[in-house]
Formats: sequence, C-alpha cells, structure tokens
Amino acid sequence: MKTRVSDLFQIKYPIIQGGMVWVSGGKLAAAVSNAGGLGLVGAGSMKPDLLKHHLEKAQSLTSKPIGVNVPLLYEKAQEQIETALNCGIKIFFTSAGSPKKFTNFLKDKGCIVVHVTSSPDLALKCEEAGVHAVVAEGFEAGGHNGRDEITTMALIPQVKDALKIPLIAAGGIVDGRGMLAAFSLGADGIQMGTRFLMTKESSAHEKYKDLLIKSTPSSTKTLMKATVPVRMIENQFAKEIMQLEQSFHGEELKMKLNEHLGKFRAKNGMLEGDLDNGELEVGQAVSLIKSVPTVEEVFQELMTSYKAALEKLPRI
Amino acid sequence: MKTRVSDLFQIKYPIIQGGMVWVSGGKLAAAVSNAGGLGLVGAGSMKPDLLKHHLEKAQSLTSKPIGVNVPLLYEKAQEQIETALNCGIKIFFTSAGSPKKFTNFLKDKGCIVVHVTSSPDLALKCEEAGVHAVVAEGFEAGGHNGRDEITTMALIPQVKDALKIPLIAAGGIVDGRGMLAAFSLGADGIQMGTRFLMTKESSAHEKYKDLLIKSTPSSTKTLMKATVPVRMIENQFAKEIMQLEQSFHGEELKMKLNEHLGKFRAKNGMLEGDLDNGELEVGQAVSLIKSVPTVEEVFQELMTSYKAALEKLPRI
Repeated sequence: MKTRVSDLFQIKYPIIQGGMVWVSGGKLAAAVSNAGGLGLVGAGSMKPDLLKHHLEKAQSLTSKPIGVNVPLLYEKAQEQIETALNCGIKIFFTSAGSPKKFTNFLKDKGCIVVHVTSSPDLALKCEEAGVHAVVAEGFEAGGHNGRDEITTMALIPQVKDALKIPLIAAGGIVDGRGMLAAFSLGADGIQMGTRFLMTKESSAHEKYKDLLIKSTPSSTKTLMKATVPVRMIENQFAKEIMQLEQSFHGEELKMKLNEHLGKFRAKNGMLEGDLDNGELEVGQAVSLIKSVPTVEEVFQELMTSYKAALEKLPRI
Repeated sequence: MKTRVSDLFQIKYPIIQGGMVWVSGGKLAAAVSNAGGLGLVGAGSMKPDLLKHHLEKAQSLTSKPIGVNVPLLYEKAQEQIETALNCGIKIFFTSAGSPKKFTNFLKDKGCIVVHVTSSPDLALKCEEAGVHAVVAEGFEAGGHNGRDEITTMALIPQVKDALKIPLIAAGGIVDGRGMLAAFSLGADGIQMGTRFLMTKESSAHEKYKDLLIKSTPSSTKTLMKATVPVRMIENQFAKEIMQLEQSFHGEELKMKLNEHLGKFRAKNGMLEGDLDNGELEVGQAVSLIKSVPTVEEVFQELMTSYKAALEKLPRI
C-alpha cells in the first residue's frame, strides 16, 4: 500500500501507531513495525532510563524502523530526545509544543521529524518549521486534544489544502472504514492510538482493556479545557474534574485542576488498572472496538475491512 | 449514483439538503431537487402560513419530490405537519424530539419518514419506531447538536453496525472528499446543510454569507449545552452566551440562557443579517467553503471532487 507516508518511513503500510503515555512501550512498537506499520515508543513523562529500556527492547524485537513520540510539554523532553538519539533512533514524532524547538536540531542529525497538530494554522507552522510530515489529529482522538475542537472530518481536508508535505490523519480511526475515510479526505497515511492500545501487545492494564470493551459512544469526554484539554473515560476521576469545572473559574480553576491531577494519575489508571481514580485516556471511537487481538490480527482486519469498504463505494 | 437512499426517494444523487431554520425556503429546496438531490423546506419555527407559502413556492419551481424538515421541539410541530400534508408533501424529516411521535401517523398517510439523530442508541430507537431511514449527524454539524458530542467519524460506523435501514450521514461534509469519506464509513447517502446555505438560492442574508466566506476552522463553537446544544459562529451574541456559561450554573444558567436567546435571534442573524446580535447557526467545516455558487454548480463540483478523491484512493 504505497503512499507518500509509506515511502517516507520505508514501511509496507502507511499506518502509524500513535505514541501513548504508559501504553506504547517497546513491545507494542516492535509488534507494529514487524506487522508492516511504524511503531512509536511513547516517551510521555518517562525518565530517560525507562525510555532507554523501552527503545532497546523494541530494537531487540524488530529489525524494522521504529520511532519515538516526545511530548514537548514535559521538562524531560530534551533529555528524552538525547536518550533516543543515543539509542540510534532516527524517527521522531514531537507533540504538545512548538515544532520549531527541535526540528532543525534533529534534521541536522539525519532524523525524520513529524509534528502532531490539531489545526490547519498550526499545521502550516509545522511545515514552515521544516518537518517532514504532520499528524493532524481531530477532536475525537484520545489524550491531549486541540483547543479548537476541530473534528477529523473538518480538519483533514483543510490541512491537505494548506500543506505540501505528507499528511497523517488521526482521531476516530479504528478500522478499514475509518482508514478509507481518512484517505478520502486527503490523508497520505493514518495514525491510530486506541486501536493499538486494545491489542495483546500494549501495556495497558487488563482491567482497563476489559473496561474499554464495554464502553459506549458516550463513554469519553474532553475535559480540563482550562489547562490542557484531554479526552478520557468519564470515570470517578473525570467526574471530579467536571465537578471542579462547574465550581471554579479562571486561575482558581487551573490551580484546582492541577492539584486534582497531581502525579501518576495516568500511570495508576492505564498501566496499573486503578479504574476509578486513574486518568484513562482514550479516543471517542473506542466503542467500535469489540476485541483485544494481536497487532498482526489488527493489520489483517484493517486490510480486509479497507478492501470491503473500498469495493462498496458508489461509483458515478 | 445509485444507493439505498437514492432508491428510497427516487432521486438521481443520494444527496439531501438539510432543513435549516430561516435559510432553506422553497427556492433552495426546489433548486436542490431540480439538481438531482432532495430539497427540504426547513419548517423551523415558521408559522403555518409561511410554511405553506414556502412549500407552494417549492412546488411551483420543481416537479421533482421535495420534503419538509420539522423540528419536534417547537409547539407548532403538529400544525406544521398538517400544513405540509395539506400541501401534498410526502417526505418528512423529523428532528429534535421522539421518533415515535409522528412516524406511524405519517406512514399511515403514505409518507416517507426520516428522523435525525446524533447517537447510535437514538438511531436504534428511530429504527424501532419504524422510520424509513435515519440521518446520523455528527458533532461538527451546524445548529442543533447532540449532547454526547459524537463526531461523524465515530458516529457513522456505529450507526451502520446497529441498524438495517438506510443511513444518511451529516456533519462536516461540504465537498466530494467528505461525501466519499461518509460512504467509506458506511453511509448510504449524505445530508449537507452549510454547503447549501452557501449558495445563491439560499435565503441566508448576503452579509451572513460574506462573513462565512472569511470564517476559519475555529470560527464556530457548540454552546448552550445546559439547554439545547447549538453550533454557531462565535460572534458577540455567542460571546455573551459564553459569559453566562462562565458565571451561572444549573437551573439559573438555563433561565439566563433562555432569557438571552429570547425570540427571533436566528431570524435576525441569518435572514436579516444582524451579525453581532443574531444567532448564526452553521457547521464547523464552513471554512472549507470559498465561494457562493448556484446549487447546480455545487452538484457539479461535488461530482468532480468525488471522482477525483475516489481515483486517488490507495489500493491494496
């Protein structure tokens, strides 16, 4: 399946596994790359030692290219980037910060740089900063979310019209139908997080996967808009956020939200299975997912459902 | 372009023009039906006499089928339905209320009934109520909006999996790329509002169309979630709503919002061109629209861009 994105990374399918905090370690990234996509280790807020462990693990499990996703909002970002460079990583997806910060530095070292964005304006800034490609991520995506709430349907054609570089669509894509829709809108490749979270190889806690299998189309909410918007499962932790959002405003709300978030909420929830008090980041389309297969099976199902959807399209 | 939706209405293209308050009168509906789609007169909060005027106007301008959209949340709904029946209308799109309310009544009179919904659960209730088809409308759609904020990408495949009857996708579709994406996700037809609002034949005020040409991807917001969520342009009226939403909660907020909305805001804004104090309902993808062509030109452009997008799809 040849597109500008499969060419850029020299991979069989233009399918990227999104970097997800505490969920996409070395095992998942390697499985995705082995299946013909591009696996990313999600650096999240990992300390350099742990990141090194996951990158080396991925490299021990595959000879195919793997990459790293570094959210630039954490203080550790620079150290994480240096750790990844020392491990020989050549593919960097940066997010949640300015694309100007590390793009030239990484390109000078011969790396491929992709930045994740949530609006056509910001996508244009990525192109101007010299990245090789962008991920444009719609409002339906899990985890960190854009402030303008632009959905994938509205976002992708506008980014396509504004940019010359390859475009990877994200947000709401979990099967071949979604993949075909993304290509219809003008994408050159897709990134999926939630679909890969729900595989045998992801490090999400089993209890978390079980909860997600039972999710409904209204199970997620985008909350914490006063600080950094995040799409998450509406569990007890999220309900407490909604309570704060009803009771406070402005600077006071920001302080209360940061206090409530505290530390390790995402780790406690997604990795350790505290379904009530943890932060459970996931995309809105999670309720389309009915099983927890292997990564290889996900790729097979994607190709089957893509082909079926393609054949059913009305011709003129 | 043959699908279950074009068969249902006996039309050339499975393309519906969404009923829009103050914007989709007889002239627009007739133009859409003449171009090979299905035009709907938006009854909105029209008094029966005005509705009769628009239906008769549409009938005088086309011999093709036309329909009416009746939002069931207004007191006048029953009277509007009787008016439309007296005019010989045989196609009813109902919305913003229970599909049980009029479906059997209308089917007994030989009418085709479609209900507009915003979630897979509600879509299933429509099917159970006996409607012929549903419109599933994503979060990116203009005007009245679902409480669960389910986007078109996440919504359409889930409605498709849950229902047997024909499915019309709405929300974020303004060109052939969006149309192709909707079919990819499993739709049998599409409904567009904003794209037809931005035509020469719509009754939207010229100043409103001029404003929309300059809109950006972040120009709309979904507001009034405490009462009935509506996607609208973030103008002065909308900013005042946001102020109320920051300052009040619960029953007090509902009261303040209803007071602020008052009467005629939509008419003043969209029909009469009061861009500051009127309510300007429109979809998020409006910023993809760069011109105000005729309806016939919209259909030509749709077919051209659909074909181009279809040819570009990666094959396996």
